[in-house]
Amino acid sequence: MPSVADAAPGDMPIDTPPNAPPNAPPNTPLAIICCGGTVPYAVADAAIRRGRRVVMFPLRGWADASAVAAYSHHWIALGQFGRFCRLAHREGCRDIVLVGGLVRPSILQLRLDWGTLMQMPLIIRSFRGGDDHLLTGVARMLERNGFRVIGAHEVAPEITAPVGVLGRVSPGAAVQHDIEHGFGLLAAMSAFDVGQAAVIAGRRVLAIEAAEGTDALLDRIAAMRAAGRITLPAGAGVLVKAPKRRQDRRFDLPSIGPDTIERAARAGLAGIAVIGGATIVAEPQRLVEAADSAGMFVVGCPDAEASA
Amino acid sequence: MPSVADAAPGDMPIDTPPNAPPNAPPNTPLAIICCGGTVPYAVADAAIRRGRRVVMFPLRGWADASAVAAYSHHWIALGQFGRFCRLAHREGCRDIVLVGGLVRPSILQLRLDWGTLMQMPLIIRSFRGGDDHLLTGVARMLERNGFRVIGAHEVAPEITAPVGVLGRVSPGAAVQHDIEHGFGLLAAMSAFDVGQAAVIAGRRVLAIEAAEGTDALLDRIAAMRAAGRITLPAGAGVLVKAPKRRQDRRFDLPSIGPDTIERAARAGLAGIAVIGGATIVAEPQRLVEAADSAGMFVVGCPDAEASA
Repeated sequence: MPSVADAAPGDMPIDTPPNAPPNAPPNTPLAIICCGGTVPYAVADAAIRRGRRVVMFPLRGWADASAVAAYSHHWIALGQFGRFCRLAHREGCRDIVLVGGLVRPSILQLRLDWGTLMQMPLIIRSFRGGDDHLLTGVARMLERNGFRVIGAHEVAPEITAPVGVLGRVSPGAAVQHDIEHGFGLLAAMSAFDVGQAAVIAGRRVLAIEAAEGTDALLDRIAAMRAAGRITLPAGAGVLVKAPKRRQDRRFDLPSIGPDTIERAARAGLAGIAVIGGATIVAEPQRLVEAADSAGMFVVGCPDAEASA
Repeated sequence: MPSVADAAPGDMPIDTPPNAPPNAPPNTPLAIICCGGTVPYAVADAAIRRGRRVVMFPLRGWADASAVAAYSHHWIALGQFGRFCRLAHREGCRDIVLVGGLVRPSILQLRLDWGTLMQMPLIIRSFRGGDDHLLTGVARMLERNGFRVIGAHEVAPEITAPVGVLGRVSPGAAVQHDIEHGFGLLAAMSAFDVGQAAVIAGRRVLAIEAAEGTDALLDRIAAMRAAGRITLPAGAGVLVKAPKRRQDRRFDLPSIGPDTIERAARAGLAGIAVIGGATIVAEPQRLVEAADSAGMFVVGCPDAEASA
């Protein structure tokens, strides 16, 4: 793996020529700003498999140092916007993917550098409102600095769930109504910049995700079952996950992984329904194995928004 | 306090004559089906203050035996529909209020009697879907048996929050947007038979209530703060509560009490916004004292649906 320090300063790659075949990766290296979880490495591996050079920018405090070590990388602290721009330009990066779980930091936790301070009014505006606002604000800042923010699913479509059933278990006819009810609910909420996941059982909405995240949502279902607050038998209920409508899908696509399956199984759910092509699947092979062994379905549903 | 056993079987009171003044209570005793919490007793006391006789029907396992002891009462088990109808008719009751917290039981927990079994198809239909469906189904069953189901707020309007500020603390101009955002979100969700409460801070939706209830919602905010998942300073954020739109307000109006204030204070919220006239306030004096001492606002907002 070439070290970032090996790149000569004058060695600036040019971008993909206009007559390049549509599937050929651009010649510029891909910058991946990595937050938590395993998804950033799946995206990096997919880009590398296509022959593209990748430079990781792991966020200190969020990214996993042992996972990052295998890639060209520069650590950055959240808020070091100037440092990021300098390093990414020096690496010749033009395209940026922002990927992985990011718990919203306190403005006091941010170590702000000079480049960031110059952008403060925009940042402060981004910090009000939902995650969407925050990420849109960050993307706008990056674009002002000559970068192009692209979605992980554009770089590596194979990391998203397909339309159809993953694994051996299919959703029964009885849960179809719950799946539709759930996606309808998420669509109704998304104008409020919230609502990427909910749990529905027997046409009843048991839990809705906001700032706590999907893991906590599933743990809540398990706790409500244990406390007798949910009295449905195990094997009832569906986790539905969807990107917010009109959300900028370049970042913050919903994701599921093997641990989602394990938590959903502990919550006694029958399965998981996501939007095909718009949901990142971390470690798909382990996910399918976990679903099969738990007897749970995982289904990618057609993207109503894409066809609309 | 007269015992229920003292009532002579032939002593059937007649209903309010048509020429009675509009504020006079009907002559028939009021049946109150009491679930958990203190609200049933506030409703009973308000009816008694107006000179109406009250017969409580505490639900075994939900109602508090020591609180019930002060009133005429008959214990019933959930599912003893036939027993309830027999006793309520014998007491001469025509109007019924269903009030208090009720965690949805498992169908196996129900001890079904003959009268209930006869109604099973209706009950089973009611058990699918949200709480609204369940309660609407129960009300329909009661009405088929000659009763009239009325709302606690109709019997005792003084137990609902007024429009305006309760206590000494007023909501600042900065939270107005959060309050509107929250009520807008709840309205958008209510078509899905869910969404009576949410917590909003700085235009961001932090938590949405589904089956877990408001107490767990507030505890979740406190836990997310403790875990650093919410990094807003204490004193930011609003709990909004509203009845579902087009909800049958005869039952299941949202309620707040002193413990809601204590939990909201532990969650670091600035205050609580409810819909005036459509939110039950349990123990209003203790609630106001708790809010004042926590420096929190409690505000009743105008009812958009009532004026629409």
